[in-house]
Amino acid sequence: MRATVMYRAGEIRVENVPDARLVESTDALITITRACICGSDLWPYRDLQPSGTGRRMGHEAIGVIEALGRDVHRLQVGDVVVMPFAYADGSCDFCHDGFPTSCTHGGFFGVGGAADGAQAEALRVPQADGTLFALPVGRDDALMPSLLTLSDVMGTGHHAAISARVRRGRAAAVIGDGAVGLCGVIASKRLGAEPIILLGRHPDRIALAARFGASHIVSERGDAAAEQVRKLTGSFGAHSVLECVGSEDAMRTAMAIIRPGGAVGRVGVPHYQTIPGAGDAMFYGNITVSGGPAPVRCYIDELLPDILEGRIEPGRVFDRVIGLEQVPDGYRAMDQRRSVKVMIKP
Amino acid sequence: MRATVMYRAGEIRVENVPDARLVESTDALITITRACICGSDLWPYRDLQPSGTGRRMGHEAIGVIEALGRDVHRLQVGDVVVMPFAYADGSCDFCHDGFPTSCTHGGFFGVGGAADGAQAEALRVPQADGTLFALPVGRDDALMPSLLTLSDVMGTGHHAAISARVRRGRAAAVIGDGAVGLCGVIASKRLGAEPIILLGRHPDRIALAARFGASHIVSERGDAAAEQVRKLTGSFGAHSVLECVGSEDAMRTAMAIIRPGGAVGRVGVPHYQTIPGAGDAMFYGNITVSGGPAPVRCYIDELLPDILEGRIEPGRVFDRVIGLEQVPDGYRAMDQRRSVKVMIKP
Repeated sequence: MRATVMYRAGEIRVENVPDARLVESTDALITITRACICGSDLWPYRDLQPSGTGRRMGHEAIGVIEALGRDVHRLQVGDVVVMPFAYADGSCDFCHDGFPTSCTHGGFFGVGGAADGAQAEALRVPQADGTLFALPVGRDDALMPSLLTLSDVMGTGHHAAISARVRRGRAAAVIGDGAVGLCGVIASKRLGAEPIILLGRHPDRIALAARFGASHIVSERGDAAAEQVRKLTGSFGAHSVLECVGSEDAMRTAMAIIRPGGAVGRVGVPHYQTIPGAGDAMFYGNITVSGGPAPVRCYIDELLPDILEGRIEPGRVFDRVIGLEQVPDGYRAMDQRRSVKVMIKP
Repeated sequence: MRATVMYRAGEIRVENVPDARLVESTDALITITRACICGSDLWPYRDLQPSGTGRRMGHEAIGVIEALGRDVHRLQVGDVVVMPFAYADGSCDFCHDGFPTSCTHGGFFGVGGAADGAQAEALRVPQADGTLFALPVGRDDALMPSLLTLSDVMGTGHHAAISARVRRGRAAAVIGDGAVGLCGVIASKRLGAEPIILLGRHPDRIALAARFGASHIVSERGDAAAEQVRKLTGSFGAHSVLECVGSEDAMRTAMAIIRPGGAVGRVGVPHYQTIPGAGDAMFYGNITVSGGPAPVRCYIDELLPDILEGRIEPGRVFDRVIGLEQVPDGYRAMDQRRSVKVMIKP
């Protein structure tokens, strides 16, 4: 079968690899019907060290179940399923607590671990019962783009909002105009935040953010951005900040615009080691920092009806659709910011 | 009148100072009937730089109102009042949000700012309506020690527990066997945590912690302490960690024993600039760090009935009672850990 392999920063190929197959009795084998490229895939695209075997890429997908291990009981062959970016048994202490991303039998797709990647024709899904969510739609339903975001970016934007304690009538600021930030705007709107301030600077993304519910756009950076946000929030900063980038600059901005007593929900994979002001400003302001890899599996029940009934349209973050063989072009387009998010139809 | 003045690390005196008096129309003048020495007073006692004017010390008190400015409406002369360590107008956005410690017209007692200290015969209390809480008891009620803890340590221990999201039936670990840590045990017990693990090593304090509801004591330090806590929590760590010290070592231990998905509530004034593992372990574990100066004024309504009806006895943290002239001895006793917490009867 064909699959995407990254060998080092900038070197990515679609290649013939051994066919995916069942290994454990708790596995499912799925044909990938939709996948995508994630902003977080750009980090290794920019800095992956050379590796002889390469890394199988991709962690977001919708697929159709082709085969099931004998210990999978909640799914059936033929089910159309959404695949969260982390697999999990659904039954350990952490899964029960709502953190399948910390599952004792879990892991992540497409990061060079035990699981392969979803930018491929097919994929073995470990812990299928705890991981996959069967959708009540056909494999080519018109809602497919939005449903695909349940595998990562919509759930991640929602996690940022939950971690940042977004509340009705309270100010939310979203840092980052990538797909996750845009979904953070959708999530903040869903939860009733007002105003919703997007910090971003790309015209097409800003337009989409406004459509999704952002009431204000701040395109400055650094201190100037913080000043703008304070102006928009009665000088005090936002109750909730959704940090959807992961850079040190973004986290510094988050800490500069969070209001005393407020919460920063961070979902951008951190490319920094310290939280600015962690010892003083954060403490004296009673500021909460929360977040991490989103337990997207747990959010599907809540978000799915809003997609099925058309109340939210996170699938609009996709602005390019490619076939599997064009995946290297898709990475380039996202890396050069010519595309917000690329959908793959293998 | 007589008041406590600290001139530099280790140099503290009780001296004649100008009588406290009303200045603003929102002030109250109180006679101090009980005050105390706080663990946080030991930080300047150990590292205050020399100052010609000195710093008026003390931020915890119960007193009797002697006089009121004309814009104070909720209090009466003669009221017995508890004084939170921060003053606040009770009406700004932050006060409404439950964070009077960030009040736009507020500040802290006894830290060298605009307000003087409570280790004195009398004190001017700014923003009296928002700050003072009138108690339904006489000035020498037998419950006075426990009521006095509402001005700081009991409310602070409760804030650690709230910030750490202590829940019924979930594991809580309390770092620090000082008065705040001991009150953190009381707060965790009140909120139903199980087990409650105290990290401390002083026999008298450990005994008190057990009386307050600690189910386990861990007296090791560093990695060995973390290993013990993991053993007591099914290898995963505690759902809630109450960091009641403020040292870098304590925060490192907190991050080592917090369970993925858990929350660290910190109330020890930080003597560190970074949170260990803030970029990686904290993020991937979806760990929340919260806390800061406790909004103790907001907690009195909830905690007072438990004190009045004898369900909690935080006043047991006081193991020494002195007069105002003995305050320097009291600092020495606490600094040398001969005393957990010293009460002052001016």
